[in-house]
Amino acid sequence: MSEFELIQHYFTERQSAALTIPLGIGDDCALMTAGHGMQLAISTDMLVEGRHFFAGADARMLGHKSLAVNLSDLAAMGAEPRAFTLALALPDVDSAWLHDFSAGMFDLATEHQCQLIGGDTTKGPLNICITVFGDIPAGLALRRDAAQLDDDIWVSGQLGDARLALAGYLQQATLSQPDLLQAALRLYRPTPRIKLGLALRGVAHAAIDLSDGLIGDLGHILQRSGLGATLRCDDLPTGDLLRKQSKALQYEFALSGGDDYELCFTAARGNRDAVLKAAEQAATPVTRIGTMDAKPGLRFVDASDNVQTFSFKSFDHFPA
Amino acid sequence: MSEFELIQHYFTERQSAALTIPLGIGDDCALMTAGHGMQLAISTDMLVEGRHFFAGADARMLGHKSLAVNLSDLAAMGAEPRAFTLALALPDVDSAWLHDFSAGMFDLATEHQCQLIGGDTTKGPLNICITVFGDIPAGLALRRDAAQLDDDIWVSGQLGDARLALAGYLQQATLSQPDLLQAALRLYRPTPRIKLGLALRGVAHAAIDLSDGLIGDLGHILQRSGLGATLRCDDLPTGDLLRKQSKALQYEFALSGGDDYELCFTAARGNRDAVLKAAEQAATPVTRIGTMDAKPGLRFVDASDNVQTFSFKSFDHFPA
Repeated sequence: MSEFELIQHYFTERQSAALTIPLGIGDDCALMTAGHGMQLAISTDMLVEGRHFFAGADARMLGHKSLAVNLSDLAAMGAEPRAFTLALALPDVDSAWLHDFSAGMFDLATEHQCQLIGGDTTKGPLNICITVFGDIPAGLALRRDAAQLDDDIWVSGQLGDARLALAGYLQQATLSQPDLLQAALRLYRPTPRIKLGLALRGVAHAAIDLSDGLIGDLGHILQRSGLGATLRCDDLPTGDLLRKQSKALQYEFALSGGDDYELCFTAARGNRDAVLKAAEQAATPVTRIGTMDAKPGLRFVDASDNVQTFSFKSFDHFPA
Repeated sequence: MSEFELIQHYFTERQSAALTIPLGIGDDCALMTAGHGMQLAISTDMLVEGRHFFAGADARMLGHKSLAVNLSDLAAMGAEPRAFTLALALPDVDSAWLHDFSAGMFDLATEHQCQLIGGDTTKGPLNICITVFGDIPAGLALRRDAAQLDDDIWVSGQLGDARLALAGYLQQATLSQPDLLQAALRLYRPTPRIKLGLALRGVAHAAIDLSDGLIGDLGHILQRSGLGATLRCDDLPTGDLLRKQSKALQYEFALSGGDDYELCFTAARGNRDAVLKAAEQAATPVTRIGTMDAKPGLRFVDASDNVQTFSFKSFDHFPA
């Protein structure tokens, strides 16, 4: 049973009759009515030592990342950060660690004017659970189920660098020390694409943030929108570091590497200029990588329109 | 450094300039403006195996309790449950466990019309983190800082039974097997006092739910309201089970035992009839146990007004 089957079987399906929430389980955020034509976007992420980060990870970067991955979910809805709660299980009170962790977290919180409003602190194996709240005018959320036939598919930034850093640490790829450090910043200090998400309100149709890898995450848009897609795999935006690796590794990390926290979104062909303008406004590069189509499933073509096949899978916490 | 000093030092004080949240860190829930004269009450609680519950705890009861302790925070604000998120770290996929856990959780959720709207699932040491959302008309929240001089102090239900069950399991007290089972239900299936919290809107001043023990939890009301209190320790409501134990143990468990999830609240003397009417409406017994006074600190008197002293402390996850 995969992670998503688990959620579907034990949680989504066991819910009693639908209640009054505009959008529940299954998107980057849930949406609650907030009055005055606004909705509140809500998302929660739990980070576990040894799973989402190595034991002994730099506390300041960990504070940043813990909040960043949650803000990234707001970005993927086009929501504006407002507040968050923090629940923290700590093996013991380590003052230096707490100082650095909270500094990294509050630096990012301040940048996005996002206020810590409550939480819980307990003793236990290191576990960081943040729930984040953002504002969005009703009807403008970038939902996973909103992709349209013939939409362009876009991604922000570069893909695969976070996975490359992991490969460096696990000695699955050879990187120079400076290259590893540069890639590691992408793994440990991801940039939530808040400005881009806000600029894409009313411009993009569907959006998701890339936490588990492009194939799986885009797959959620396809499934929820009832459509398929074709990606031009040579158009995937990769950086200098990843391009030093083999072509096979470039495809693998760009298509199935997790932890990039870039946005993948769809927009009507007629909105290409508007998308580029939004990207400029947000000072965030975007790349057009494919098209939504009617045939279910995800296909790949090269620059000459030849079909490519890959067997990569996205990250699953509970693989079969 | 205690749990509360830790929160104060590393989190509350490190926040940048106050933002626009009506009520932030330091109460049972935070409050966010929700439009149409309403506020959204938000609270989060994290439960860790071996800390909040024994390894191998009954999954159905654990599902109940995980949500109940969060609903109890809504009750303590007078908020009406609306939705929750669930983040879950699991060591592995155990279908029987997940079935029972979700059943226990959804039974309680359905009873309170509280919808699961999102969450996160990951592999890791068992950890359950719930964030809960409730509605309350602006200005009616039962805040910890709202106790008034000469207010009566009340508690709901009975005190000390959850601690008695724990004492039974840890062989700190002798209980018959049937008595232990009965006490254990209070430990594992606490009743969030939602109806009472709602009925006390506009009737009570301050309220808190009893998770760490009466002395410490009432202490938060005293501190935030800038007042002291005197409790009549022979008026503490205890049940048949606890009354079989020594008088010393009765005081200790009623005053400092955690996990009861009863409400402690204050109300004007003139509102005694209104409090009793609210309690009747909520079908929840309440007992008047003391008075708010101007002298800082918490004092105890017996039925003859003789001063009693105790040295119990409330539960602290990071004791000095």
